[in-house]
Amino acid sequence: MNTATTQTSPSILDTSRIVLAHGGGGQLTDQLISQVILPRLGNPTLNELDDAAILNDQIALTIDSYVVDPWQFPGGDIGRLAVCGTVNDLAVSGAKPLGIALSLILTEGFAKRDLQTILDSIGLAAKQANVQIVTGDTKVIPGNGIFITTAGVGLRDPQCKISSMHIKPGDKIIINRPIAEHGLTVMLAREMPDMMSVLKTDASPLNGLIENLLNKVQGVHFLRDATRSGIAGVTTDIATNTGYHVMLNEPDIPVDPHVQHAADMLGLDVLEVANEGVVVAVVDPAHTDHAVKIMRQHTYGKQSCIIGEIQNIRDGICEITTVIGGRRVVHKPYGEQLPRIC
Amino acid sequence: MNTATTQTSPSILDTSRIVLAHGGGGQLTDQLISQVILPRLGNPTLNELDDAAILNDQIALTIDSYVVDPWQFPGGDIGRLAVCGTVNDLAVSGAKPLGIALSLILTEGFAKRDLQTILDSIGLAAKQANVQIVTGDTKVIPGNGIFITTAGVGLRDPQCKISSMHIKPGDKIIINRPIAEHGLTVMLAREMPDMMSVLKTDASPLNGLIENLLNKVQGVHFLRDATRSGIAGVTTDIATNTGYHVMLNEPDIPVDPHVQHAADMLGLDVLEVANEGVVVAVVDPAHTDHAVKIMRQHTYGKQSCIIGEIQNIRDGICEITTVIGGRRVVHKPYGEQLPRIC
Repeated sequence: MNTATTQTSPSILDTSRIVLAHGGGGQLTDQLISQVILPRLGNPTLNELDDAAILNDQIALTIDSYVVDPWQFPGGDIGRLAVCGTVNDLAVSGAKPLGIALSLILTEGFAKRDLQTILDSIGLAAKQANVQIVTGDTKVIPGNGIFITTAGVGLRDPQCKISSMHIKPGDKIIINRPIAEHGLTVMLAREMPDMMSVLKTDASPLNGLIENLLNKVQGVHFLRDATRSGIAGVTTDIATNTGYHVMLNEPDIPVDPHVQHAADMLGLDVLEVANEGVVVAVVDPAHTDHAVKIMRQHTYGKQSCIIGEIQNIRDGICEITTVIGGRRVVHKPYGEQLPRIC
Repeated sequence: MNTATTQTSPSILDTSRIVLAHGGGGQLTDQLISQVILPRLGNPTLNELDDAAILNDQIALTIDSYVVDPWQFPGGDIGRLAVCGTVNDLAVSGAKPLGIALSLILTEGFAKRDLQTILDSIGLAAKQANVQIVTGDTKVIPGNGIFITTAGVGLRDPQCKISSMHIKPGDKIIINRPIAEHGLTVMLAREMPDMMSVLKTDASPLNGLIENLLNKVQGVHFLRDATRSGIAGVTTDIATNTGYHVMLNEPDIPVDPHVQHAADMLGLDVLEVANEGVVVAVVDPAHTDHAVKIMRQHTYGKQSCIIGEIQNIRDGICEITTVIGGRRVVHKPYGEQLPRIC
């Protein structure tokens, strides 16, 4: 008697149920937010859908859960990711991190040694970001793995005007380093754990770099960290939210050859791969050179460069000029290429 | 050939692994915090182990994950719990809630209809607490159920001095309502889902009641919500942290007869059962009557009463006078009576 059973995931076509892609930060996540969450919980602050909410004009609050699988990968782990992600969400909102709250959901049987490794990693990342873990919670459930939620509170100068509303035609798009390394590192660690690879996560706290930029450079209109959905997610959001045409130039986008090779091998578009140490800055053209110079002075910005611009065409579309001179439209990823990347 | 396998939980004696009780809020949680977490992440703010951290003397930050199973139970669900828990943690720190961050970890196949129910419940509880959900995140993992993490930020008057440091001998211990209803409701819903019962969770946002108390009554020295580990957890913590003797009077502690009946049936001590709408206030004896009067004016405080006092004996022990006139020592629960109650 054949008693084999196959475990099936719910079909993406069964719209009555949650699928993995609802958590991928792409179009399906947007749908869940706009159709299910906002109609019930919406208010002017939440509706902004920014990386951090700004309360009383100066207190920034952000939250993110981390469910990355495997929890450890070259160059980092879920703990480093959780701290960097929350610090970066505060930083791109123009806020200076004041403290981080850490909630651990552990599973029965999880090795204390592994928890210690993760906590050490949290401690190191927090030190690098010059912020402290100030409060926390611990729960335990049956199952496998570890899930971490970090919330951060920060202070923002009430005069600070970092918002997609301030983006205007002519603005240049700058990034601080080569892209797609985090996502491909995790994918390789999960799908091909025995493969030797030089890739390692880019997860870094960018608050220092961003503080320098905001303190020293005028005309920084918008900042966003390119996490789930990658550069494509941020630039298509800019096009959609501003209504302007966003033009990227592929030859200008730095990609490490090993990363490009891994992406080609896996059939992935580097633009859509998640990062945890990449910030996208939209800057007034008069201040772009200065911005790049200041960013390059920082450890996490040595390869800063301009990758595109905002054009005065009101079509809300993002396009990219390819290396062979053609053009293609950049779409926001539907779900994510591989789930649980952060 | 016998191919049956049994899934075993890690033994509580295997100290190298996490067990469910590490998440129970009892002695094992305390051990995990003091032996594993604080040595790695400790700092003066985190070391306070208060319900909320106070930053810059006035910004309160708190976080809690909710993993209650089942996610729905008479009188509420995981969404109501998450909002009330976070609002109450801010309130007992003397802070007025400013905004809540909501992070959902959903599982593949979770019904959208159930998610809608939970979001409606979050919306209702937030409305009752007069606070908004201002930012959020959504992740999806394989598995069953839903896990919610809420973080809250609030503002506290820099003059506010609510802390166990201010507790002194003679102070009275007041609670706002009968105890143990939440924990027993969840236990019955999980262990005996077909049983008819009149029990329902007490989960309530207590910020309104606490604001009234702090605004109108002098001499409120300490506040704590009696969640995991119940009244026993709070009163033993008071004894340990202050070094004074805490004396409770069992006949004064309100317990609904149905709750007592359920506890007897399950062999549980109502003092150790979790609540989500019970606040413990320690108040100067000169202001106790006024405090009880003010608390009784609020919907969630109609049965407020004194249940014990702080005595000038420096032994750090909590005792209770029983209904038959004897005395017994109250211990902090080791783990929890049944896991995943919040």
